[in-house]
Parts: sequence; C-alpha cells; structure tokens
Amino acid sequence: MKIVKNPEEMTRVASDLRAGGCGLALVPTMGALHQGHLSLVGLALEGGRRTVVSVFVNPTQFGPGEDFARYPRDLEKDAALLEKEGADVLFAPDAQGIYPEGFSTRISLPSFENVLCGPFRPGHFGGVATVCCVLFGIVRPDVAVFGRKDAQQLAVIRRMVADLRLGIGIVAAPIVREPDGLAMSSRNAYLTPDQRKEAPAIFRGISAAAALARLGAPSAVELRAAFEDEIGPGGILSIQYADLVDPSTMVPMDRLDRDGLFAVAVHAGKTRLIDNAVLRPGVGAVEV
Amino acid sequence: MKIVKNPEEMTRVASDLRAGGCGLALVPTMGALHQGHLSLVGLALEGGRRTVVSVFVNPTQFGPGEDFARYPRDLEKDAALLEKEGADVLFAPDAQGIYPEGFSTRISLPSFENVLCGPFRPGHFGGVATVCCVLFGIVRPDVAVFGRKDAQQLAVIRRMVADLRLGIGIVAAPIVREPDGLAMSSRNAYLTPDQRKEAPAIFRGISAAAALARLGAPSAVELRAAFEDEIGPGGILSIQYADLVDPSTMVPMDRLDRDGLFAVAVHAGKTRLIDNAVLRPGVGAVEV
Repeated sequence: MKIVKNPEEMTRVASDLRAGGCGLALVPTMGALHQGHLSLVGLALEGGRRTVVSVFVNPTQFGPGEDFARYPRDLEKDAALLEKEGADVLFAPDAQGIYPEGFSTRISLPSFENVLCGPFRPGHFGGVATVCCVLFGIVRPDVAVFGRKDAQQLAVIRRMVADLRLGIGIVAAPIVREPDGLAMSSRNAYLTPDQRKEAPAIFRGISAAAALARLGAPSAVELRAAFEDEIGPGGILSIQYADLVDPSTMVPMDRLDRDGLFAVAVHAGKTRLIDNAVLRPGVGAVEV
Repeated sequence: MKIVKNPEEMTRVASDLRAGGCGLALVPTMGALHQGHLSLVGLALEGGRRTVVSVFVNPTQFGPGEDFARYPRDLEKDAALLEKEGADVLFAPDAQGIYPEGFSTRISLPSFENVLCGPFRPGHFGGVATVCCVLFGIVRPDVAVFGRKDAQQLAVIRRMVADLRLGIGIVAAPIVREPDGLAMSSRNAYLTPDQRKEAPAIFRGISAAAALARLGAPSAVELRAAFEDEIGPGGILSIQYADLVDPSTMVPMDRLDRDGLFAVAVHAGKTRLIDNAVLRPGVGAVEV
C-alpha cells in the first residue's frame, strides 16, 4: 500500500490507478479507523476496484466548542489496518494541502442544514460537502463509499454529487455495530466505562421505534416516545434529538406513511453519539 | 453544429468529443452573442480543440430588481453566429435541466463577494460560481474560456477551479471594444442613442487611469479622480464604483505599487456597464 501526502501526487497516482480499468473508489475518513470504516473499504474493493482511503481530520467541519483538537489520530495504526484490508493508497494530506493559502470556496446545502444534526453543528455539513468536493477533485474516483451511520452526511453528499453532476457513484455502507448493538464510531473511544455500559440503550431505542414501524404507520411523536422509553430520563444518556425525516431530502415527516429516516443524537457527558435506521411502515427497519 | 438541450445528452456528446483527443473547450455564455463572445469561441477552437458553447440565462445570478426578464434572448441568431464561427455544439439547457427539482447546492466565495460588483449584486457571484460548476460537471471540459470584461467573475472562477481541483484550464480572453472604445456587452443593446453616445467616456476614463499608471505608482484615489474627470458630474453617466484591487484575490489596493485591476461600474439610466484594465506601475495597461 502506498502512502501519499501531497495532493498533486495523489492526483497522478489516482490517474494511474484509474488507467488500470478496474474502477477507482475513494473512502473519505477522518482516521481512527474501526471495523465500520474497514467495512467501507471492503465495499470499495468489490469487483476489483482500486481503492484510495483518505485520512484527514477536516478542521472546517468542527464547530468552535467541538472536539477537533482531541479527535483521535493514529496514522500508523490506520495504515496497518488499511494495508491488511487491501487498500491501494492511504491519502493523508495536511490542512495546507487541502486548504492552501487563499482557499476561498464554500459549498453549502442550506435546506439540508436546518434539521437533525444541522442546528446543533452550524457549518458542519457545509464543511463536509466542501472537503468531499475537494477530495473528489483530487482523486476523481468512479465511486465513493460513505457509511449509513452518518445518514445526513450521506444525503448531503448524494445531493451535492447529483447537483454538481460530479459523475461519482455513491455507495452507502450498512452500520456496523458492537455485539451489544452500539454503532461503531471513533468517538466511542471517549466513553467512560459507565457511559459505555449505558450506550447500547441507543440501539435498543432505535429497535423499539423499528418495532412500532413493523406494526403500522406510527407518528414521529410515537417513534420518539418509544426511543425515549429506552433512554429514560435523568440518566447517563441525554437525548439531543430523535426525529423522523425523509431519507433523501431530510424534510421532517409527521408520520411514517412511507420510508422514513429515524435519526437520533444522544449525549453521554460531553460525548455526542448518533445512530439511525430507515423505517418502512408495516415492515420495520430496512436498508435502502 | 449540434444543438443540445438535455444535460445528460450533453454529457454523452461531450464525452465523444473528448475521445477525439484534440481537447474539449467550454465557453459559458448567457447568449445575445456579440463579437466579444465570438472572440472567446475563437480562442476555444485554437489548436483544434472541440468547442461547446453554452447559452443559459442563469436566474440565480440576477438579483430581485435586475434585468433577468428582459435580458436579450435570440437563440436562433446565436446559433447562426456559432455555426459560422465553427463551434461544435451549442448547449442550450432550460432552467429545469440545470436546476432539477430538489437542487440544493450553493457555492460561494465570500472573500471575493464584498468588493467591486459584489456589494451591489448580492448573491451574483455565488450564482455564477454554482452554475459554472454545474456546467463544468455536465461538459467536463479541458479548458473553459471567460472574458476579461467580467474580471471579478474571472477571478472567482479561477479561484473555485483551483480550490475544488477541477483540473480545468481557464483561458482569459481580451476585452473586445467598439471602434469608439466601448467594451462590447449584451447590455449595450439597452442604451438609448444619447446614452450610447456618452458611453465611450468609460473607456476614456480607464485610459486616463492607465496613462497615470504609465507615469508611476498612482494611488487608488488618484486613479479614481482621473476616471471621474472623464465621466464628469451630473451627466448621463453616473459612477457606481471605480476601484483598484489585486487582480487575483480582489483585495483592495491603496496604491498601484504592483499590478492592479482598475475596475469600474457606471450607470446610464437603468443600464449598468462595467469595464476594467490591469495596470502596471510605470507601464500602463497590460494583459496578464
């Protein structure tokens, strides 16, 4: 596996990989790789595609009070995991490489930024859209792989790629969970043992909402109540939101009268965890 | 010459043209083509490049009180001119083709939008950047040609292409002028005979500023005064701005101590005309 830090070199290397004719995939990450990320790499490599994994802790997608400085970074460990997984290139640029002096372009998708995580993380999705567009420009992949855990990010990227006619296929990877149901996340590393013990209640809450969906067409209020019942009041976990939205447009839905994304954010102390499921009335949780 | 209205068809046609191996150029226009536009097409065709000219009056780059509705449109005449000039494709999408339902992505370059035309046309340059990015996505040209008359637009596009690593060469075409010096513009058609008679004062004013530059390193105030002397107070023409900025970053300059863009906007009644020159201390007007 090649490790590339310079964006211009990355463009050249990617061009060579593309010339092989097997397709080129990009898996954008912020490093601190876990089994969830590696499952994305597995999807990227399918069909013999050559695969670039980027590791870049993007400063512009963190808010002022957020965890940019303490976000876990371990490039050596990431490289070892990716090598073992069969990735072709680890692209690890520095901030100067992605945002050279004079960088001035901002991408935003306003209608996607006022729901779910948006109001709690102002500027986050614009930062994500912009850095992904830059990474797409550097690597020019045929497909890019994103995890379903970040469902709003996935919707933002899909919309941007369609709007700007980038011609990149977006592959959505299923959420990978710990045996007790907790969705894998680099931020799980922040959890104290007590918080970690409580955290699976998030997936139990989502499963309770899915059980309601299986029975009919619950309202958003009913889904939230089912979720709240599992989290409970005044404990280690506190709910930031638990909302039902259209999976593509992120427009809030009052009732699960068609496929809906039930997405939640929960705090365990300072650590913020997100999870979600796409629910189908009469069926329960589905992957779409 | 082929006329294409559908963006998906345009992508296919462009891909075929690119496969010819002579290079592919895009000339984005809003139609109402004049000699200035045709000079861009000439530059695009250089070296045997295949050339797509887009004609799209982009609603998102017009402000509420601006001339979107009355902007001149004559696709048949445009097509005849382009055919004669040797363009390969006229791409004339409708608004639904460029902005399909659900379109949500906005590109902006805030630091470029608070000088020169920016404050007088809020949202204009974001609209230009966004539509150009979409057109670039549809056509995927090797080069795109823009006129120097729209110097701020040129700087915005160059910055965006660099930032997003679009890999498109930007060719800047010299301003084409009427025999009396008036810069060619589709909006010249709005001028009454009296306004048209006065309009060459704009170029005389720019030339007076260039004459000052030839003599040394004038201040922005001195350049503006030289320009104002030619326009005169209380006449048919009124100055909106006459400013000196860095040609690449659009940051205002106090003095012409290096190459500077001297750019002006002037009203003749409701019609707004712009013009500019890059000035070099001790030299005068230059093309860079």
